Formats: sequence, structure tokens, C-alpha cells
Amino acid sequence: MTTYKAPLTDMQFLLKDVMQATELFASMPATAEVSDDLVDAILEEAGKLCEGLLAPINQTGDQQGCRFDSGIVTTPDGFKEAFKAYAEGGWVGLTGAVEYGGMGMPKMLSALIEEMAFAANSSFALYPILSTGAALCLKLHGSEELKKTYLPKIYAGTWSGSMCLTEPHAGTDLGIIKSKAEAQADGSYSVTGTKIFITAGEHDLNENIIHLVLAKLPDSPPGPRGISLFLVPKFKVDANGEITDQRNAMSCGSIEHKMGIRASATCVLNFDAAQGYLVGELNQGLACMFTMMNYERLSMGLQGNGLADSSYQVAAEYAKDRVQGRAAGGPVDPDRSADPIIVHPDVRRMLLTMRANIMAGRALTLYTASKLDIAHFHSDSTEQERAQKLVTLLIPIVKAYCTDRGFDACVAGQQVLGGHGYIAEWGLEQNVRDARIAQIYEGTNGVQALDLMGRKTVRSNGELMHMLFVEISEFLAEQETQQDSNQGQSQILASYIETFKAVRRAVAEVTSGVLRRSIDNPNEIGAASYAYLELMGLLLYSFMWLRILVATQTPQARERYSDDYLSGLRLTGDFFFARLLPKYKSLVDEIDAGADSLMAMPAEQF
Amino acid sequence: MTTYKAPLTDMQFLLKDVMQATELFASMPATAEVSDDLVDAILEEAGKLCEGLLAPINQTGDQQGCRFDSGIVTTPDGFKEAFKAYAEGGWVGLTGAVEYGGMGMPKMLSALIEEMAFAANSSFALYPILSTGAALCLKLHGSEELKKTYLPKIYAGTWSGSMCLTEPHAGTDLGIIKSKAEAQADGSYSVTGTKIFITAGEHDLNENIIHLVLAKLPDSPPGPRGISLFLVPKFKVDANGEITDQRNAMSCGSIEHKMGIRASATCVLNFDAAQGYLVGELNQGLACMFTMMNYERLSMGLQGNGLADSSYQVAAEYAKDRVQGRAAGGPVDPDRSADPIIVHPDVRRMLLTMRANIMAGRALTLYTASKLDIAHFHSDSTEQERAQKLVTLLIPIVKAYCTDRGFDACVAGQQVLGGHGYIAEWGLEQNVRDARIAQIYEGTNGVQALDLMGRKTVRSNGELMHMLFVEISEFLAEQETQQDSNQGQSQILASYIETFKAVRRAVAEVTSGVLRRSIDNPNEIGAASYAYLELMGLLLYSFMWLRILVATQTPQARERYSDDYLSGLRLTGDFFFARLLPKYKSLVDEIDAGADSLMAMPAEQF
Repeated sequence: MTTYKAPLTDMQFLLKDVMQATELFASMPATAEVSDDLVDAILEEAGKLCEGLLAPINQTGDQQGCRFDSGIVTTPDGFKEAFKAYAEGGWVGLTGAVEYGGMGMPKMLSALIEEMAFAANSSFALYPILSTGAALCLKLHGSEELKKTYLPKIYAGTWSGSMCLTEPHAGTDLGIIKSKAEAQADGSYSVTGTKIFITAGEHDLNENIIHLVLAKLPDSPPGPRGISLFLVPKFKVDANGEITDQRNAMSCGSIEHKMGIRASATCVLNFDAAQGYLVGELNQGLACMFTMMNYERLSMGLQGNGLADSSYQVAAEYAKDRVQGRAAGGPVDPDRSADPIIVHPDVRRMLLTMRANIMAGRALTLYTASKLDIAHFHSDSTEQERAQKLVTLLIPIVKAYCTDRGFDACVAGQQVLGGHGYIAEWGLEQNVRDARIAQIYEGTNGVQALDLMGRKTVRSNGELMHMLFVEISEFLAEQETQQDSNQGQSQILASYIETFKAVRRAVAEVTSGVLRRSIDNPNEIGAASYAYLELMGLLLYSFMWLRILVATQTPQARERYSDDYLSGLRLTGDFFFARLLPKYKSLVDEIDAGADSLMAMPAEQF
Repeated sequence: MTTYKAPLTDMQFLLKDVMQATELFASMPATAEVSDDLVDAILEEAGKLCEGLLAPINQTGDQQGCRFDSGIVTTPDGFKEAFKAYAEGGWVGLTGAVEYGGMGMPKMLSALIEEMAFAANSSFALYPILSTGAALCLKLHGSEELKKTYLPKIYAGTWSGSMCLTEPHAGTDLGIIKSKAEAQADGSYSVTGTKIFITAGEHDLNENIIHLVLAKLPDSPPGPRGISLFLVPKFKVDANGEITDQRNAMSCGSIEHKMGIRASATCVLNFDAAQGYLVGELNQGLACMFTMMNYERLSMGLQGNGLADSSYQVAAEYAKDRVQGRAAGGPVDPDRSADPIIVHPDVRRMLLTMRANIMAGRALTLYTASKLDIAHFHSDSTEQERAQKLVTLLIPIVKAYCTDRGFDACVAGQQVLGGHGYIAEWGLEQNVRDARIAQIYEGTNGVQALDLMGRKTVRSNGELMHMLFVEISEFLAEQETQQDSNQGQSQILASYIETFKAVRRAVAEVTSGVLRRSIDNPNEIGAASYAYLELMGLLLYSFMWLRILVATQTPQARERYSDDYLSGLRLTGDFFFARLLPKYKSLVDEIDAGADSLMAMPAEQF
């Protein structure tokens, strides 16, 4: 019953007016040809694809789920055909390296497309995203031979990819994996072990699956420093780079029955002396994986935002359509038996919360994608490095905060529909189930929080945070110089900037506090981590809202967009600053509460 | 994979040591025979039943769901047998009126049993609870003839009950229902209409279903004042009160496919000139329903707490068992490959949040049940009235706050398990799906918030809130007189009492603020409502925690419970006051933000 509409205006506005992608693309040789016209055409085409091809098989895909029989995984009706169309449209290779047949498009563009794909059909979206991730890893670390053989096929969607990390006893802690690889006389490796929770580990969408598998050589150092990465194709590939009919010594043992993303195959894979090829250096497997992790984790944020938007669209329509009760100030529609529920402040609270977070979250993913693009494409290596460092700080926040707010939004959307939100028909309960995984996979949100507070903040001694503060200061300085020229909205905006500065001060203070306390008690890092992640999320969402509000005031925006559109953004921003941002104070209190009340209970008393 | 354990020690502690049920029962003639021994025996037996009979068919029930075929609903394997055993044990009639074959037990006792039933198998629990609700309504409003005919059978579980309120276009707003009832020559009524979302509206658990149906007489006043209540049996009953083989003119049209509680049949019922009998006065149908609503809404709070506890038990065991990574301060279990994840502060944060809210929520449901018992059984009508008024204030908070915190706890429990929380095997994803409905049915939590802020606060001009404040003041005065005798814990406790007083002041202030602002702008009520409900939830949970902490210090508690048990409670309470309660401040900010940012957006811009 959901009819997803690609949010192209919002995307255009954020891309061009807020993030100034036109200027950024023009400034870098590798993206110089990515014109506004090209961006518009690609986004529009992607929107049509998501609306017309992926959304229609979302609910049926959930109902049917993937089926498993004797090692063979069958995807739901329509998935194979949709994947073929998706691949033939060139979408899998959109950001792929041009020299291996990819289209070389920037991440800012593909991020928006991924969001739409997740919104329309999260289960489907995972298949091409796993391919993109595997291809990226291979591109960065594979030998020339591996790249020439595998990348063109993966970009074309003829073959697909999977990432094989987790084992039954080793998820977050990959240092203790047991899978083994032994060097063979021909230079290949024999890979043996069991991997679980492997997304797209087996399916029927195309002819071959290229698995990237973490394993240890017998004589490798213990722990994370002894892990290597191997490429293991499902069907062996001959010397000409063509698929053979020879199955590699690996198979799918079963698929998981899950809460959601039920049309995505989550596989147990058994490798039994399968033939594999080393990717990157020996014992550098985790490092290879981590270079790609920033892209994968951004994708999860996109999933959160996309499903939130899908739920918002349905909930907003429902609230305008469903009549029930009367407005507090008297009937607004006296001729009907009741008023539409959009008259109720609490229904508006839910919808505005969804919308304010969706827009800020989308802006944040685009902001992060712009840093990835600069890190990848910029000609100045100082700029590249600075962008790369910002990415490492931003990613855990995008991954966790966008997925938390995305899940909340799906739950709120369901709540707007009351009982109709709980039944399958309207699709909103599926969004809740599908969004839930994004808080868990690719490193749980708790692990992201620890990464942010520990590695990215305490262990960098605040360097990365300082870089973000520089970005913020630059933006604020720009506003000050422009303040005189915009009298209309600028009083309100000036007050928002003051609130924002208070949040920034609070972040600076709690950061020093945790840095200080963690010297004596390392548990202070983990004790602060989740509230700190949420605080950083609020800081960045308010930073994004300031940028959006500033962008609504430019002559260019007034020319391009309707007054209604721009005033809708402003009112949503007003709501954000009035209602959502003040919550930062209780996060500060929580961080200041420290570790004692968490650590006092003996383990056995839980 | 879940193995639910009835939390009998916590229940005993709350019942006897915190709520002093022994003394309360002894003080009222109708409950004077409910001795400690009887309570212990009943709770223990109920615990065994939930662990051994209901929990084992919880996961299979979810997998199979209810099946619908040509008007017939088949419950999952084992449900029929389990219901038979449950009914034969006398559990359906536990609180039933003695004069019609019920056991006349207090609600404080049955509340604990309901919580366990919801924890073990929420789908199952709904069947007897609907019967209990229908029986209560009939007991309060039915004619003597109806009571004599139907109550003994419902108490015995031979027949069951359902409540038929919602129609496709009328959920929250029952004033606009379309179902009709026409008086017949024999004194019965002919009932026609379509009802949806009817829990236990059709099933195969026993021989007859007694529907309580809201409908309007042709000449009745418009809106809520024209609604009457009718008893419509599925199979007609003869003059001797025995079931006949004559089907009434009604049938089940379909069942819903839902996110959770999939073994509970949620039915579309079509009444087509079905024979019904008036319950209560004509046009008083809504009032009849509402006298029972307080019990039903308490049940939903129990569902939230129960599922939270079920999730806590699994998550705590998992966290002690699963090894992954190392403690921040160095290995605690150096001989194993990794430490159990309970060493991580953020895992503890999730578990302690669950536990602190489960215990406070359980205390609050018991506190509310004690008021229901006083209202029902007390010999002093002033006491009765006071208790009844407190109930009306407490119920929307219990319904919404316990179910919100219950859902959060189920989500957190799932998160502790990481990927294993997302797959069906461990049962925690089912708890999330099952808990979600409790926030929606029996009046969405948004409707509860509006009821609390509007009807119970603004429209009572703060009278009910004042009564709660009197209860609180009495408790605090007691503590002051006892403070000198307990030096040990009392310094900490005194500081908690100070924080609690600050919360109480904040509640008093925002209450006056909303009362004042709502005079000019009625939307201020709805704008404040949700944050106000959460603020009241925190006030009451902290009130409950104070009572729990005080109870841990009595000589009697020290004698009855182990030091470990009591220190576990104290440490959980410390966590609550350090980490959870400070959030009240941001709720105050949210309330103070007022209605403007919610109401400014024109409806069409959503």
C-alpha cells in the first residue's frame, strides 16, 4: 500500500544549494564533467527505477522471503528480473573505476541513489551494495590481475560480491576468527572455515559470487595482526577471466530467519579447502577491510534515512486523510464527521520529528560523501588528507545516529497510523523491521559509539574533533560576514546560531572531561560513549540545519524553489531548534554522571 | 531459545516489602483471607504454568500464527490444550466475583500473574485477558439474568469474551461508529455492523464466544452519547443458560496479518442482524466500557513490563556468556580468547536501563493495582473514592510509559545480542514485535498522553495531580521521621530524595504553566502532552525507586532476602538516579517550548 516517491526536490536542494556540489565537482578534474544536467538526469532516472522497479516488489519480497533448499538460495519473485534491469542500467558500476568499466561517478550522487534504493526496497538494495563494497576493496587492494579479471564483471552486475568476516564465535572481535588459509604451490590459497551472517552470500541473481574472506595463515601472528584477505569465487574462473562450470569447494549451509530484510539472503557459508587468492598484503586483511568500511557504514546511515523517509511519506498522507476526533480549537472541517488527525499537535510532533531528522540526516550523509569524494578525487593531497580524517570522525556518527533516528522515525510513522501501522497491509511495520538491522550490522551502534569516543576522540587526543570544529568555525565566520545582507530571517537564525554555539561549547567541555577522566579510569570512555555519540549527532544535525536554513535565504534558492517549499524547510528547522536540540543538555548530564553507576554491579548479579 | 523464569523474588519483594500487600489485604474484609501463604502458593503455581505451559508454545505460536479459513480461526499447535489447562486451573476466574463462581482474588495478585503470562507468551495471554475484561464489564453493568447466565461460564473458561469497539472508520473516535441495534419484540436487540481489530474475536479454544458490542439505536443522540452496549453470543444460549447449536447471525470475515502477537487472532467481525442483549442503560455504552478500560490499560502496561523482563533475562545471560574483545582496563578472563561482553560499560548501560525500568514499572503497576483493590474492596467509601481518582490519573501513565519503556527494553535486549538479536532463533526479535502492539492498542500512547494532560490534569484543574502529590508528601514525611534510625544508606537516599523533590517541583511548575497557557490556546495541551506523560512517568518511576530503596533497609527485608539480592536492588537504584532520572530536565524544556513550532506548518505542506 506504500507508494514511495523519490524525494528529488529535497535531494537537489541539499546537493546543489546546501552542499554546493556543482562547484565541488567542477573544481576536481576527475568529476569536472559531472554537470548539473547529468546529475539531474541520473537522479531522475534512479528515482523512476526505485519507484517503479524496486518498490513494487518490496512487500511481496518480505512476504515470500528467500528460500533455501540443499545449498541453493532462491530470491523472491521479481528480484532476478529487477537485478538484471538494475545491472543493465549500469547502476552497480556507477561509482566504479573508469579504467575497469565503471562510471566513475562521485559518492555524493550514489549516496542519494542508495538512499532511494533502501527506501524503496532495503532487501534488494543490499545485493548491489555488497557488490559495490567488494569491488571497492578489490580496487584498492587487489593485484592488477585480480582487478582486470573481476572488476568489470562485478561493475556489470554479471557477477556479484560478498564480504565474509563474521564467524559463530567472532563478530565484533575479528581477532579471534578461526578460518584458515594455506598457501598452495600455484600461488593460490586453500581457504577453510565457517562464516555466518553473510549478506548476499548465496543467491540466484546472477552467474557468480565473488567472496572476500578473512582467514589466517597457520604461522600468522595471533589476534588482528594475523588476518589476511582472500578472494574466493563461487564458480572458478579460467585463465581468460571467464566463468567455468567448476564449483569452488564452498557451499551455503543455511540462511537465517530474521526479523526483517527477509528478501536479503543472510547465509552460513562453509569453505572447505576452497581455492582463493590473496588480496593485499599478507596479515593486512583487517586494514584492507577497514578502508572500505567507511563506505559500507555510510550505506547503513542511508538505509536509516531512506526507510525513515518512506515511512514519513505514508504517515503524512495518512494524517491528512484519516478523520478522527476534532481539533482542540473547534472543528476545522465541520461538514465532515471528524477532522483529519493532522490537526492534533501530537501527531504533528511525530511527523515533524521524523521530517527534521530525515532532512538533517540526509544532509549529513551528503556532507560525509562530499568528504569521501574530496579524499578520493581532490588534486591537493592536504585537502585529501583533511577530508579523509573528517570521514573517519563522521562515519561512526552517520552509521549510528542516522540509523537510530531512522528506526525511531519508522516506529513513529507506524504510531501515526495506530492499529493500521501494526498490520502488514500498510507496509510501515515492515519498515520498522527492515530499519532495525541497520543499528546492528556493520558494527553495532554501541561499537560505533566506542569507536567515536575511544579511537576517534580519546586516542586521537581530540585532533579529529578539532578539525570538525575548524569546519564549523569557518561556516560561522562566513555567516557573520553575510549577516548584514539578510535582515529578514536573520534574527531567528542568529538565535539558532547562539544555541548551536552553546552545544559546541558543551561538546568541547564534555570531551575534555572524558579525556581527563579516562586517564585514571579507562571505563570512562565506554561509559560516556553512547551519550557522546548522541550529543555529536545533535551537534551535526544542528550544523546541517543551520546550513539548510542559510541556503533557503539565497537569491538562487528563491528563484529555483517555490515559497511553500522554502517555508516548509524553515518551519521544520524552527521545530528542530525549538523541540529537538534542547535534549543535548540531558546528554551532557549523562556523560558527566561517569562510569561508577555502570561498573558497580558484580557481573553475576545481572 | 528463550527460557523464561518467573521473577518470583522480585514480585514477592514488591508485593510484601514495598507495597505491604499483606497488611492491605488483612485490612479489607473481602481480602482478609488472602494470606501470605496463599499468595506464595498462587504465585508459585502461576510461575510454573507460565514457564512450563505458555513459554514453550510462544515461538512456535509466532511461527505458525493463527490460520483463517472460511470464517474459522485455528490457533497454533498447543494453544487449545494450554487454554484448557489454564481454564481448568481456575486462572480465568481468579479475580471473578465469588457469587458467580470466581475466586475473588485482588488485582495486585492477578497483575503479577498477567505480567508473567505476557512475558511467557503475549499472544496466549490476550485470550484469557479479553475474557476477564468482558466478564468485569458484565459484572458491573449486566442484568442479574445476564450475569447468572454468562459469568460462571466465562470464569470457567468454557466460554470466552471479546470487546467489539473499533470500526474501519472509527478507532479513537468511537462517537462516529455506524453499527446499529434495533429493539425486538422479545426485549432483545438486532445488531448489525462491521467491527475490526477484534482481539480473540474468533478462535477454537473453547465452545462459545461472548461479544460485547458497541452500537447505536436508530433514534439515539448523535456522537458518544448515543452509543449502547450489547452482549452478542457466537452460539445462542437457551433458557437454561446452556449453549445451543444455533449460530448467531455473525461471522468472522478475516484475520489481520500483523507485525507480532501473531498467535492472537485479530478479527474482522460482521454482525448481520445478530441477536443481542442490552448491557447497562441505553446510550450508556461508552461509560460501561470505560469502567473496565482502567483494567485493560493496566494489562497493557503489564505486557510492556513482562516482555521487557523476558528480554532482560536472555540478554543478561548472553552478556555473561558471550566472549568478545577485552575489558577496557585489561583482560578479566586472560585464560580465554576474550572477555564476556558484560565487562563493557555500554552493555551494562543497556542492561541496567532495562532492569531499572522493569523494576520501577512493575512497582508502578502494583501500586496502581493496589488502588484498584482499595477502590473495589475497601469498606470506607472515602478511601474508595480517593483510590478510584488516583487510578484514573495513574492509568494513562502506566499504559503508555510502561509500554514505551517495555518496547525500548526489548529493543535494547535485542541490541545486546547483536546479530543474534535480529534472527528468530533467540526470540528477542519476537519480543520487540510483540511489545510494539502494547503502545498502540487500547488507545495509542499519544491518546493516553492527551487523556493525562487534558482530561485528567487540565480539565480536573489539577485536582488529581494534587491527590498524587499528597500521597508523595505522606511518603516523604514518613521518611523524615525514620531518617535518624537508618544511618547507613540514608545519606545517599537523602540525596535521591532531594533530586526527587526537584522533579516534583518541576512537575508542579510545568503543570501550572500548561494550565495557564491552555486558557488562550487549547493546542498547548496536546503540544505538551507527550513530554508531560514522560515527565510523569519519570516522577512515578523515581517515586517507586525511593520506595524500593527504603524497603531494602528494613530489618524484615534483611531477614527475608540475601545481601546480594538487596545490594543488586540498591545498585540498580543508584543507576536510575545517576543516569535515567536527570532526563526529566529536557522534558521540561520540551513542554516549555509550547505549541507554536508544532502548529505553524500548514497541513498541506506535510
